[in-house]
Amino acid sequence: MSVVVQKFGGTSVADAEKLRASARHVLAARALGHRVVVVVSAMGHETDRLVDLAHTVTPSPDRREMDQLLATGEQVSVAMMALTLQTLGCAARSLTGQQAGIVTDAAHQRATVVSMDPTALRGLLEGGVVPVVAGFQGVERGGDVTTLGRGGSDTTAVAVAARLKDVYGSATCEIYKDVDGVYTADPRVVPGARRLEAVTYDEMLEAAALGSQVIHPRAVEMAKRFGVPVRVLHSQEAAGRVDAGTLLVGETEPAMETRVVSSVVVKRNVARVSLRGLPNRAGVQSAVFGPVAQARLPVDDIIQEDDGPGTINLTFTLDRGDVGEVRAIAQRAGAEYGAQAVRIDTGLSTVSIVGEGMRHATGVAARMFRALAEEGVPIENITTSEIRVSIVVAEGDAERAARCLHGAFELGTIGALANSPQGLSD
Amino acid sequence: MSVVVQKFGGTSVADAEKLRASARHVLAARALGHRVVVVVSAMGHETDRLVDLAHTVTPSPDRREMDQLLATGEQVSVAMMALTLQTLGCAARSLTGQQAGIVTDAAHQRATVVSMDPTALRGLLEGGVVPVVAGFQGVERGGDVTTLGRGGSDTTAVAVAARLKDVYGSATCEIYKDVDGVYTADPRVVPGARRLEAVTYDEMLEAAALGSQVIHPRAVEMAKRFGVPVRVLHSQEAAGRVDAGTLLVGETEPAMETRVVSSVVVKRNVARVSLRGLPNRAGVQSAVFGPVAQARLPVDDIIQEDDGPGTINLTFTLDRGDVGEVRAIAQRAGAEYGAQAVRIDTGLSTVSIVGEGMRHATGVAARMFRALAEEGVPIENITTSEIRVSIVVAEGDAERAARCLHGAFELGTIGALANSPQGLSD
Repeated sequence: MSVVVQKFGGTSVADAEKLRASARHVLAARALGHRVVVVVSAMGHETDRLVDLAHTVTPSPDRREMDQLLATGEQVSVAMMALTLQTLGCAARSLTGQQAGIVTDAAHQRATVVSMDPTALRGLLEGGVVPVVAGFQGVERGGDVTTLGRGGSDTTAVAVAARLKDVYGSATCEIYKDVDGVYTADPRVVPGARRLEAVTYDEMLEAAALGSQVIHPRAVEMAKRFGVPVRVLHSQEAAGRVDAGTLLVGETEPAMETRVVSSVVVKRNVARVSLRGLPNRAGVQSAVFGPVAQARLPVDDIIQEDDGPGTINLTFTLDRGDVGEVRAIAQRAGAEYGAQAVRIDTGLSTVSIVGEGMRHATGVAARMFRALAEEGVPIENITTSEIRVSIVVAEGDAERAARCLHGAFELGTIGALANSPQGLSD
Repeated sequence: MSVVVQKFGGTSVADAEKLRASARHVLAARALGHRVVVVVSAMGHETDRLVDLAHTVTPSPDRREMDQLLATGEQVSVAMMALTLQTLGCAARSLTGQQAGIVTDAAHQRATVVSMDPTALRGLLEGGVVPVVAGFQGVERGGDVTTLGRGGSDTTAVAVAARLKDVYGSATCEIYKDVDGVYTADPRVVPGARRLEAVTYDEMLEAAALGSQVIHPRAVEMAKRFGVPVRVLHSQEAAGRVDAGTLLVGETEPAMETRVVSSVVVKRNVARVSLRGLPNRAGVQSAVFGPVAQARLPVDDIIQEDDGPGTINLTFTLDRGDVGEVRAIAQRAGAEYGAQAVRIDTGLSTVSIVGEGMRHATGVAARMFRALAEEGVPIENITTSEIRVSIVVAEGDAERAARCLHGAFELGTIGALANSPQGLSD
């Protein structure tokens, strides 16, 4: 008997009707003979409401108290989902993160799952009861409530599946969303965008890190590490269909070997911080990125280039929302090391092409730049990894760039996936 | 250094402004050198909102899930109060019932405090930090969240004070309300009603059981058992005043010896269940009250009277809201034992006079009935205890009866307390 962990986001549990629709996926999976564990986020905009509530008393609330406050959002959801399942005749029991055995470190609001004790879940599953687990939260060793940060419910779902895979030999994870899978590009931006039947963990990781909001990158990382198959599904889709949604897999199947580019991803609200004319002394990089890491601010890409003998330009991109904190750090480091200037630009986006096949194909970047040149999109910066190429462009150029690249790599047609290398040998 | 447990109800923590006003009582007590523990209820009407939310999915929610749901109300409050204290420069830390070490039995929605581990509170108090404890909730031995039922935050506050009295030698409890103490009668009903400086636990217990909503009877019982002094105070009153509010004390002071009646209490929404013409066989009483107790429905007064040879009438009063469940029990028992009729009346109130001095005074009931006769209030039933006399009247007569009794026992004038026995010897 296999174990399925079904995760429902905030919109899928926003009210009684949506709760019932989500609960029907649980019933369908049970009818197919699966043992089901449910993981839920806070209802609708509850987390935002709680954040606003805290801000009525202080602009910078203590992180521990915020976790105590925010964790109530998921605690409400699990009770509501358990009640909903019970009204549909399904034995169910709600569990907070702590009750589900999820232990984290003490980094409040950005905690990392350290361990998971499956005792409570096993007891319920073996008694035929559906455990409904609060996503996004856990408890640190001292007994304080912690949260995993935004998108943390995906991480909870994968962590639960990984641990139960250990116990039962296999477990899969289904992430229910208001989209029906992973697309070759955002369909609102690129009209010809197409759902992918499968992507690799690494492709998904790149896409998630680059701004695809389908699934949280930490969850994908964990799924990759523990080999948990994850399927992204639409919450209104019929339950139990194996051809629905998009499957995240570890290894590329034979047919996928030839795929070079699988998707185009746009990330908006990007800021760029640039320290110009820095003396290239030992420690200059860590003078910048040490404090940034300590403040737990995620940096996207880092570029370092020469700027004359012994002098460098150090540039990095990050979320525009984090610019306030980073500005002070960059200016302090710039002053300490004698930078000629510290520049901050905020009106930017990154546009990336991602594909497992790039590990072996050549000429992909060249083809990308030619397409952008023909479209007349100015490129501000370029960074690459093994399976992606990213460019920084002005915010206003991002959508046009995405459409042009989606066309250039023929992502709108299924056949193009296998055929594309032929056009990439330039 | 003495310990003060300050309890703030829902209206005292309803928004940022009210939270600050409540927090100032904490600061004032700290400034006087006290160690302060705060206990809070859910903000404003949050508990009602959560009950309504559960009812969107089911009319009869599972009790365990309701506790999981309702406990979030106080968890939000403790975080908000801790944040408020922090913004006012006071080190504070929120604790759920579980984190505060409050262990209960497993009777969901009506749990009883079984034990309290003071370790967490001691650690915080000795580190100069104000613990902010979620009222109304605890955890049972299996790790499930429990709640103590309506008014349970008062119980939490007294339980915390009782446990800390054990640890530190003394502790007092301050219950902040939107009234400034215990009155001789409800001032909205009786214009001449007057605040009492002190009442005994027993007087308060009778008054609370009879419908006075100043403080929860379970809390008073616990205060009596552990000898915890409790002061009822207005949340807008200046903190630290020892002459404010009403003090609940264990023993009557000399000046109080002569007090006969201290207050008049009205309880509305009373229902009366009457089994007429029951054969007086062994077990007939427990056939009725056994199932009522098992359903944990609180019964107010029980009256049994003869109805001819070997036949009795068995009558009891209870909250109108519980009539639905009790009706079925009464009818089943009535059928089983061959009662002639089972009558249920719902439009009733009880009006009671309460006073420690009744233990020794005589003629108090007679004076009460004379006053009601002169006022023309028909009495439906009478019950008495050592320190009170209660009558059941039609709902529409209740307020008039209360005013008349308040006048008859001269409760509006302070001198009357000492002088009243003079008029009671009839």
